[in-house]
Amino acid sequence: ARRGYPEAVYCAGKTPAQVAGIAAAVRERPDVVTLFTRAEPGHAAAILAELPDARHDTDAGLLAWPATPPPATGGLVVVVAAGTSDLRAAREAELTARYLGRPTELVVDVGVAGLHRILARVDLLRRARAVVVAAGMDGALPSVVAGLIAAPVVGLPTSVGYGAAFGGLAPLLTMLNACAPGVAVVNIDNGYGAGHLAAQIAADPAA
Amino acid sequence: ARRGYPEAVYCAGKTPAQVAGIAAAVRERPDVVTLFTRAEPGHAAAILAELPDARHDTDAGLLAWPATPPPATGGLVVVVAAGTSDLRAAREAELTARYLGRPTELVVDVGVAGLHRILARVDLLRRARAVVVAAGMDGALPSVVAGLIAAPVVGLPTSVGYGAAFGGLAPLLTMLNACAPGVAVVNIDNGYGAGHLAAQIAADPAA
Amino acid sequence: ARRGYPEAVYCAGKTPAQVAGIAAAVRERPDVVTLFTRAEPGHAAAILAELPDARHDTDAGLLAWPATPPPATGGLVVVVAAGTSDLRAAREAELTARYLGRPTELVVDVGVAGLHRILARVDLLRRARAVVVAAGMDGALPSVVAGLIAAPVVGLPTSVGYGAAFGGLAPLLTMLNACAPGVAVVNIDNGYGAGHLAAQIAADPAA
Amino acid sequence: ARRGYPEAVYCAGKTPAQVAGIAAAVRERPDVVTLFTRAEPGHAAAILAELPDARHDTDAGLLAWPATPPPATGGLVVVVAAGTSDLRAAREAELTARYLGRPTELVVDVGVAGLHRILARVDLLRRARAVVVAAGMDGALPSVVAGLIAAPVVGLPTSVGYGAAFGGLAPLLTMLNACAPGVAVVNIDNGYGAGHLAAQIAADPAA
Amino acid sequence: ARRGYPEAVYCAGKTPAQVAGIAAAVRERPDVVTLFTRAEPGHAAAILAELPDARHDTDAGLLAWPATPPPATGGLVVVVAAGTSDLRAAREAELTARYLGRPTELVVDVGVAGLHRILARVDLLRRARAVVVAAGMDGALPSVVAGLIAAPVVGLPTSVGYGAAFGGLAPLLTMLNACAPGVAVVNIDNGYGAGHLAAQIAADPAA
Amino acid sequence: ARRGYPEAVYCAGKTPAQVAGIAAAVRERPDVVTLFTRAEPGHAAAILAELPDARHDTDAGLLAWPATPPPATGGLVVVVAAGTSDLRAAREAELTARYLGRPTELVVDVGVAGLHRILARVDLLRRARAVVVAAGMDGALPSVVAGLIAAPVVGLPTSVGYGAAFGGLAPLLTMLNACAPGVAVVNIDNGYGAGHLAAQIAADPAA
Amino acid sequence: ARRGYPEAVYCAGKTPAQVAGIAAAVRERPDVVTLFTRAEPGHAAAILAELPDARHDTDAGLLAWPATPPPATGGLVVVVAAGTSDLRAAREAELTARYLGRPTELVVDVGVAGLHRILARVDLLRRARAVVVAAGMDGALPSVVAGLIAAPVVGLPTSVGYGAAFGGLAPLLTMLNACAPGVAVVNIDNGYGAGHLAAQIAADPAA
Amino acid sequence: ARRGYPEAVYCAGKTPAQVAGIAAAVRERPDVVTLFTRAEPGHAAAILAELPDARHDTDAGLLAWPATPPPATGGLVVVVAAGTSDLRAAREAELTARYLGRPTELVVDVGVAGLHRILARVDLLRRARAVVVAAGMDGALPSVVAGLIAAPVVGLPTSVGYGAAFGGLAPLLTMLNACAPGVAVVNIDNGYGAGHLAAQIAADPAA
Ligand SMILES: Nc1ncnc2c1ncn2[C@@H]1O[C@H](COP(=O)(O)O)[C@@H](O)[C@H]1O
Ligand SMILES: Nc1ncnc2c1ncn2[C@@H]1O[C@H](COP(=O)(O)O)[C@@H](O)[C@H]1O
Ligand SMILES: Nc1ncnc2c1ncn2[C@@H]1O[C@H](COP(=O)(O)O)[C@@H](O)[C@H]1O
Ligand SMILES: Nc1ncnc2c1ncn2[C@@H]1O[C@H](COP(=O)(O)O)[C@@H](O)[C@H]1O
Ligand SMILES: [Mg+2]
Ligand SMILES: [Mg+2]
Ligand SMILES: [Mg+2]
Ligand SMILES: [Mg+2]
Ligand SMILES: [Mg+2]
Ligand SMILES: [Mg+2]
Ligand SMILES: [Mg+2]
Ligand SMILES: [Mg+2]
Repeated sequence: ARRGYPEAVYCAGKTPAQVAGIAAAVRERPDVVTLFTRAEPGHAAAILAELPDARHDTDAGLLAWPATPPPATGGLVVVVAAGTSDLRAAREAELTARYLGRPTELVVDVGVAGLHRILARVDLLRRARAVVVAAGMDGALPSVVAGLIAAPVVGLPTSVGYGAAFGGLAPLLTMLNACAPGVAVVNIDNGYGAGHLAAQIAADPAA
Repeated sequence: ARRGYPEAVYCAGKTPAQVAGIAAAVRERPDVVTLFTRAEPGHAAAILAELPDARHDTDAGLLAWPATPPPATGGLVVVVAAGTSDLRAAREAELTARYLGRPTELVVDVGVAGLHRILARVDLLRRARAVVVAAGMDGALPSVVAGLIAAPVVGLPTSVGYGAAFGGLAPLLTMLNACAPGVAVVNIDNGYGAGHLAAQIAADPAA
Repeated sequence: ARRGYPEAVYCAGKTPAQVAGIAAAVRERPDVVTLFTRAEPGHAAAILAELPDARHDTDAGLLAWPATPPPATGGLVVVVAAGTSDLRAAREAELTARYLGRPTELVVDVGVAGLHRILARVDLLRRARAVVVAAGMDGALPSVVAGLIAAPVVGLPTSVGYGAAFGGLAPLLTMLNACAPGVAVVNIDNGYGAGHLAAQIAADPAA
Repeated sequence: ARRGYPEAVYCAGKTPAQVAGIAAAVRERPDVVTLFTRAEPGHAAAILAELPDARHDTDAGLLAWPATPPPATGGLVVVVAAGTSDLRAAREAELTARYLGRPTELVVDVGVAGLHRILARVDLLRRARAVVVAAGMDGALPSVVAGLIAAPVVGLPTSVGYGAAFGGLAPLLTMLNACAPGVAVVNIDNGYGAGHLAAQIAADPAA
Repeated sequence: ARRGYPEAVYCAGKTPAQVAGIAAAVRERPDVVTLFTRAEPGHAAAILAELPDARHDTDAGLLAWPATPPPATGGLVVVVAAGTSDLRAAREAELTARYLGRPTELVVDVGVAGLHRILARVDLLRRARAVVVAAGMDGALPSVVAGLIAAPVVGLPTSVGYGAAFGGLAPLLTMLNACAPGVAVVNIDNGYGAGHLAAQIAADPAA
Repeated sequence: ARRGYPEAVYCAGKTPAQVAGIAAAVRERPDVVTLFTRAEPGHAAAILAELPDARHDTDAGLLAWPATPPPATGGLVVVVAAGTSDLRAAREAELTARYLGRPTELVVDVGVAGLHRILARVDLLRRARAVVVAAGMDGALPSVVAGLIAAPVVGLPTSVGYGAAFGGLAPLLTMLNACAPGVAVVNIDNGYGAGHLAAQIAADPAA
Repeated sequence: ARRGYPEAVYCAGKTPAQVAGIAAAVRERPDVVTLFTRAEPGHAAAILAELPDARHDTDAGLLAWPATPPPATGGLVVVVAAGTSDLRAAREAELTARYLGRPTELVVDVGVAGLHRILARVDLLRRARAVVVAAGMDGALPSVVAGLIAAPVVGLPTSVGYGAAFGGLAPLLTMLNACAPGVAVVNIDNGYGAGHLAAQIAADPAA
Repeated sequence: ARRGYPEAVYCAGKTPAQVAGIAAAVRERPDVVTLFTRAEPGHAAAILAELPDARHDTDAGLLAWPATPPPATGGLVVVVAAGTSDLRAAREAELTARYLGRPTELVVDVGVAGLHRILARVDLLRRARAVVVAAGMDGALPSVVAGLIAAPVVGLPTSVGYGAAFGGLAPLLTMLNACAPGVAVVNIDNGYGAGHLAAQIAADPAA
């Protein structure tokens, strides 16, 4: 674990057999949390064969071992998904922040086409020390959220959409050009990175 | 005039002398409104030498002759500018719609970083038969407006911004991917086209 | 339903099981039309299991429930497809406009390589209050149609083509640069958005 | 002269002094036609100081020496400009074809927004052995012309336009995706190349 | 057939059943040559069921009916493929030119990395009235060929390559920027268009 | 001031007269810090005429009024510039963070081509609660810094470079793909946004 | 073999049958080393049926025949892979250099997020006459290595990553903008080209 | 000087005063060669005021102090420019290699449109231990040169050209996709980097 944080194994592009080998080695180090990200069903089966008591979140495509996250310290991380299709990235962010030790909340389906939905959650948003906002297509939600709160917003563009969304390029550019300051952008679909960054931001200063 | 609409002369790329020649010819046809768009000071001086009673709007870089627009018919066209830097495109849109015969209103500086500003104008927006929304940088405002009203929104991306705004590409993509239906997109900085389209939409059906 | 318009469920990226769950919930609200767009055969089967009397249009990949569209009001929406390969997007646009309550007509295979074909339909085009023009490859047809009529044209670029069509980027740029004013552009392959926008434009002003 | 064709000197990026040096050398070879392309006023003055009897076409930014083109042989080359702003490229194409020895005709301001204009010239177009079509913005005209005639069309995209025209990229892509076969595309603003290609196509087979 | 040329049916994106329907209709018109391009095995089987005596070229993925091309008239069309991977596009070009009535020759594997190979074929190249040059990756061959001959070169970029070839964008740009004049560019992998254009160029002037 | 933070006036694209007008209004509100960013000499003169005691930092192109920043609270913000050409953006970030109330340090010329330079500053970097890293060209420094410390890194890509740096696109992509987690990316040359974000991250939790 | 170097057969895009035909021909020329690159299992089986004693490296997807590389001459080529996912390209580079006759070493998993890993190998790197550095995502490693050694670095960008890595575009741009001189860039995933180039650089001058 | 190589000062983006300050400091270190690259006349004057005996090459925009290059060691570096417009980059490369201590030769105007020109220089090219090839527009020359010689080729794309040359992107992609192995690519217009790399390649192994 780099600097006390969990290890992360990126499963995409690895065979189930390769991932199984890593999982077997992980078993020797129960003192460190290991996250397996972007795990397809084949990866998950291979990991669970080695680490049967791992936690498997199918929404996020993520497995964690040991299953129990560390006690929650630091400020609250709220993860917001504009639409239900953004859930995979959003959930990956939430779990990553939780396994780095932060308390977390998840809010789904609050896109800007119906402003009342996000406005109804302003109280929760203002309690957060960092807010991750996952959005595809127009990627407009981080600008709106950053205008509502004083804490930093982590903009997480997703590849949700088609045509001129160009695989997430459109929301990525939107977030880089957010008209409200305070938006930190990560790579398209990088829920792991968004959650990691949010957890670092929300860590207690002494940590 | 194509199909009863004003003639438009695009001044960019023409010399003042060329524009003066066109203005001299225009003087022979007072029955048709002629708009000179994208007129720099040199163009304006050349036009005013030929058509001293033309109207010159320096915000929009637009001249109109005859100066008086036609009586207003059809539905209301509201033009919204996210920031003051979007004013040139927005004003070009408003004047074009006005010279095509629509009643118009202009609303400035209502970007999504401070939602209360646009929310305070919802009544006016709901009275419109077409709303033009000019925005640069993240281009998020048309999505928000389209979610608030039933009438069509004309998204007018502007080249305001820098870096990853890529000369207006970012807000253009944002608007093409608007998560609310009902957004009609035109070219970057094309205030003339946006106002023309809005005037066509807001024309009375019999027209 | 947002502002009295149908609900739309975007099936792409959802599993048949997820779509079935939505369809089951829809059954409780027969007062609102629900459209299921981008439905593959697996989606369609799942929806029809829950809503056996839904209408399924295989050309458009669209299902509607209840099956009967609302009585037609407002102006005529004409949908034009440059080639037969543009039919899926064009038909999606037509059905969306029809289920939003507009009378519609569909015209296919009238690309600019044989001008007589579109010229033969000018009378119909001039009767429309809004015309959707679907085209891939060079995307030249909306410019031509906008030059022939006074009503607004909704340019619907499609991903038809290969190589330098770049998945619909080429016709998208063509339409954004239409040399005739009056062209409203939507996202590539966004038949739903094009039909929705056309229906809004063609709605009776009082609506 | 490569293979019996004129020499061409590309002035852009050269200083007037450098161009003057080339012009002085050219004076030694009156048997070969030399074209100076993309000549700004400073270049032109420098060339005319060395070759006072050279022909200078200011529309095209082109100088030719000796001034008299070769006798016209081969088929007719018609050069078409969609708008007046495309004239520089179109005229460069026409003069190049003429100095390579072809008879030429120039037709201006026949864009697709007013189809009657190009339809009125079909007889002339059908007499050509090659037609150059210069167009910016949507670049739609070559598709239309190629559908009207049997001879090859040289599509010459221009940088006329703004925003999503991206310096000529939009009409370039349009022409590469022309829905009518028979369109040969050259580089943006490359009137010299278009005219050269057309002259090669229209050369008599024996040549 | 447009203007006396063959009909072409683009099979990609059509189902075998749709193509079979077209083939059945074609049977009624033996006076016109019909080409089926981009035919996968499923398409070919469906076509051959309707038109058993059609010619099927598996290299090109092309079927022609009636099988016998028209008598050869006009000038020679030489088709050159830089590498063997460019053969599909090159062969599609050759057959198209042949079915439009030109005599043709095909030359394969003469890329610029071994100049002696193309230099050994200069005599043949100089006998052509039009030369199609298919190349992927660096797309350098058309520049070299255009420097060797006086006839026009049709540059046919292919999607052969990977990485920074960007699906044929690299050779497309190379050909548009050919440092020798006389290169006419068509869309990536557009063997049909290249062959059609070459056949038009090489047609006898009277035709 | 939004949520207790300074007001910021973006001078680029405004005339000196317009900026002077804003500065005059600012004089009425000495309780709020106002920052003028991207001020060219003409802007600065106009501002100083209205607010003679404003602070003017010519490296950053920034003016602040009142001149004295608030007392420093929260964690340390370290701003790192890879090269001296990145100084303008870096200094803008530092001053913004300082005027939002954070203690700051600036480190210049520690690019990855000479690793010993950044390694010599690890102690300082580890004392920071947020580190801004400005870099152009390859943009590699944020990855390296993020691997050395536990606090979040704000990656600030600059337009320093030429050719394939594409105006800052290259370092922007590099930072979005940082192989170490914990990198928050902002727009190219957006020193204001980077400093603002860093100040929000480093604010004391209670704030 | 060009100039005494091995022949290379690029298997991607060829059928196993086509590759088998080439392998059969190769058997006639045991004096020349032939490399089969980008061989999928089907290709490998077909080659091994013809050349049973060929060497097959499954990591690299490469087969060589005859199996024994030439005696090592010239300087050392060190191949470095930033992450384990870069191994395929790195191994292809190493084997190519080895079969061109150079001594080689391979170093894996030394990315810049943990600088101590690459710093621990500086002695080895300084013994090399050429170093290939394979990296995806941020592509930052070649800049760091080039700053540590005097020999040339061959930057080998890989398609490892997702989102804004854009299939290897991000590390490609990073390497082209390396802030240390001495970085030679090759195409994305082009391990063969990188190894070939390194072997040429490290050849003994007399060779 | 990094590892015994000259220091280089990149003047673009620096004021003459800043460059003068650096030149004054340089005067204290006559034991190291310093190169000032991309020096405009204002820069040059400022440098020469401090270092009157510096060498100033106006073609390359480069100044060197001390003026005398080190004695030539290692293999020959040949620098080739496709056209005269590529001379600035080519000359910058040659001088850089010379000041790093290599013997150099420069060959100009040998583009692929006239193959005999480069073929006439094959003997010289084959004597080189590294060849730099500068080319804009189609960038085809490095592929051809790499096919003629066994030594490495450094491909130096230039921004010469217009339109679809996209500021050097076209030749950059061409060189990355060179169909002959052995091409090392550097950034657009980076003559300094190309010359530096070639000098490293051509250094004597013991160096
Ligand atoms: N989903 C993810 N997205 C981006 N980076 C990741 C992800 N999961 C893991 N990583 C990073 O990838 C590294 C592991 O890569 P690997 O050694 O290939 O498994 C970890 O140290 C993380 O920094
Ligand atoms: N600002 C503008 N943006 C886009 N198109 C315009 C603009 N102004 C005028 N036009 C169009 O350009 C045509 C006139 O172009 P021109 O003949 O070059 O002056 C008019 O018919 C309009 O359709
Ligand atoms: N306007 C032009 N556009 C593109 N290529 C040109 C143009 N004018 C001349 N050329 C080509 O550039 C070559 C001359 O370039 P140069 O030696 O730099 O003057 C000629 O042989 C032509 O092939
Ligand atoms: N250098 C800058 N870069 C990006 N955004 C800025 C910058 N300076 C100010 N801003 C933002 O722009 C807004 C002011 O814009 P304006 O009203 O046009 O002056 C401020 O509220 C800031 O959020
Ligand atoms: Mg905020
Ligand atoms: Mg709406
Ligand atoms: Mg119209
Ligand atoms: Mg034709
Ligand atoms: Mg030629
Ligand atoms: Mg860190
Ligand atoms: Mg080095
Ligand atoms: Mg070679």
